[in-house]
Amino acid sequence: MALKAAEHGLKFRPHFKTHQSAKIGEWFKMFGVECITVSSVRMAEHFAANGWTDITLAFPVNVLEIVSINRLAANIKLNVLIENKEAAEALAKKISNPLGVYIKIDTGYHRTGIAPSKTGSIQMILAQIENSKHLAFKGFLTHAGHTYQAKSVNEIFTSHFDALLKMKSLKQKFSKSYPNIEISMGDTPSASVCTNFDGVDEIRPGNFVFYDLMQQNLGVCSFDDIAVKLVCPVVSKHLSRNEIVIYGGAIHLSKDSIININGKQMFGRVVINKKGKRELLPPLNYVSKLSQEHGIIKVTQNQFKNFGIGDLVEIIPVHSCLTANLMGQYLTTEAETINMIPKEY
Amino acid sequence: MALKAAEHGLKFRPHFKTHQSAKIGEWFKMFGVECITVSSVRMAEHFAANGWTDITLAFPVNVLEIVSINRLAANIKLNVLIENKEAAEALAKKISNPLGVYIKIDTGYHRTGIAPSKTGSIQMILAQIENSKHLAFKGFLTHAGHTYQAKSVNEIFTSHFDALLKMKSLKQKFSKSYPNIEISMGDTPSASVCTNFDGVDEIRPGNFVFYDLMQQNLGVCSFDDIAVKLVCPVVSKHLSRNEIVIYGGAIHLSKDSIININGKQMFGRVVINKKGKRELLPPLNYVSKLSQEHGIIKVTQNQFKNFGIGDLVEIIPVHSCLTANLMGQYLTTEAETINMIPKEY
Repeated sequence: MALKAAEHGLKFRPHFKTHQSAKIGEWFKMFGVECITVSSVRMAEHFAANGWTDITLAFPVNVLEIVSINRLAANIKLNVLIENKEAAEALAKKISNPLGVYIKIDTGYHRTGIAPSKTGSIQMILAQIENSKHLAFKGFLTHAGHTYQAKSVNEIFTSHFDALLKMKSLKQKFSKSYPNIEISMGDTPSASVCTNFDGVDEIRPGNFVFYDLMQQNLGVCSFDDIAVKLVCPVVSKHLSRNEIVIYGGAIHLSKDSIININGKQMFGRVVINKKGKRELLPPLNYVSKLSQEHGIIKVTQNQFKNFGIGDLVEIIPVHSCLTANLMGQYLTTEAETINMIPKEY
Repeated sequence: MALKAAEHGLKFRPHFKTHQSAKIGEWFKMFGVECITVSSVRMAEHFAANGWTDITLAFPVNVLEIVSINRLAANIKLNVLIENKEAAEALAKKISNPLGVYIKIDTGYHRTGIAPSKTGSIQMILAQIENSKHLAFKGFLTHAGHTYQAKSVNEIFTSHFDALLKMKSLKQKFSKSYPNIEISMGDTPSASVCTNFDGVDEIRPGNFVFYDLMQQNLGVCSFDDIAVKLVCPVVSKHLSRNEIVIYGGAIHLSKDSIININGKQMFGRVVINKKGKRELLPPLNYVSKLSQEHGIIKVTQNQFKNFGIGDLVEIIPVHSCLTANLMGQYLTTEAETINMIPKEY
């Protein structure tokens, strides 16, 4: 991803909410990464404490956290996201350190952000930013998260290109008054497969650090690209219904699911150890149910015998961000334990 | 629940996996509770360290944790669950301290346990238990978790009664050789609404300590019985689609959902503060979507104006166990912070 960003002349500001780890953060530095994205003030504080000095907090400003934001802005280059007048007003009133501000644009995901057509709303926010000596308008930022729901790679191209046009047109519209404004976009699906970043200044993918079943299913990565799994012990077998019970449930994997080839909900794919060789089982062997600590693996008749009580099986998570967040620790293939930042209380 | 258990002459062994807190555990002691249920070795260790001396580990024995189980069994009265020969063999071989063993029975949930008709399998496990000087057969245990999927309170009655009959018949069958064996059952739905516990020795409900939207929806509790909520700040409002964005997502609430009256997935109900009075909003105002940190509240036109940027709204979780597990801390109505046990790494 770092090479791709360099190739396209893009600033690479990876999102660290997927791995949430200072140690993994260090690996990014080896690829020349100097600026990052996070999704909470606590994460920003943690990574700032670990030497990161240029951080974008990519979540609509929570006005109840302005004191912490202001404190952080005193020590590092911090950018925040605004999408309404109220938050802009609150920042203008209470911030006393230099703070970069992106205006969040909704390019089709319809979760947060201002529709690109609402230039009136954008102007109102800009007026508030102008009111403050400390706020600096950095540009427009979008998260085209609807690429996660794409039915094909082509749909990712289309969504990305559509978002790109909207962002470019906004940049054009406002570049007279703000010649240095930037466009920040680039979710993992589009940053992975798209090649047109014309007019884009920076990308902020995060999930790609591990990828997961959702991305593989989208066609964004291959199984070999998936870099995180949950290792679970087998605790029970039920031949009458071809089910294996693992110690690994909703409190470990989280409950995001995708639809399996049999039309059923699937919470993970299964890798087993067969005579010393690891083997990804076909899709009809899959995590079919999760309760608090139990996971149920549906298996085909011929695979049933390959599971033994006490065996360790590897589950490829549907959504690695949520699984990592629940587990709080990693074990590398070199048997090193890597801690994540303390949970977000 | 303590009073109800006493009324019916039942041992009350509440499940502590919902609250996972030493402090809340203390409250149970005020009601005479002396024995508890947990779902992991780590939880058992934690509560043992907090003075609990009689603990049932209600999860099929993970044979990879036998060393820890043995260590714990040296210090407290510990019971474990077995449902296959392999685990029985492993315990018989490696346990060197007194350890109580329940055989897990599947009374219809079909997640774990032995079908009550499979007395051959039960006999095989009993033979293994007999082989060991340290293992003591305590009785039969079931979790009728299919009550959680009941469509009505009547269905809970039916499932509970059916499970009861199966367990009683097993007890009868084995009471000649084991005159003191016990029946342990009692999930939150059946322990809350059923009144027939004929032949049952102990109940192990857990979720009732907080209840949640799932239980309210089942008809098991009222809104007033729900004792835990997630307080979230409003970060954005989108009039064009009647949506409120809160800082509260899948990493806070978890992703269990129920079906709302409009047929859509719902991840939580909403309580707001209206001129100093807290008000539960009608069901068409509900958490309709969750991503990692964002929650989307769909609201009706007339409620939209009651949400302001920076307001704190209270979300009633669909599944309190998972929400509590993610948050790791509680704030009481008396502003006291209560910590949960460290996360299950």
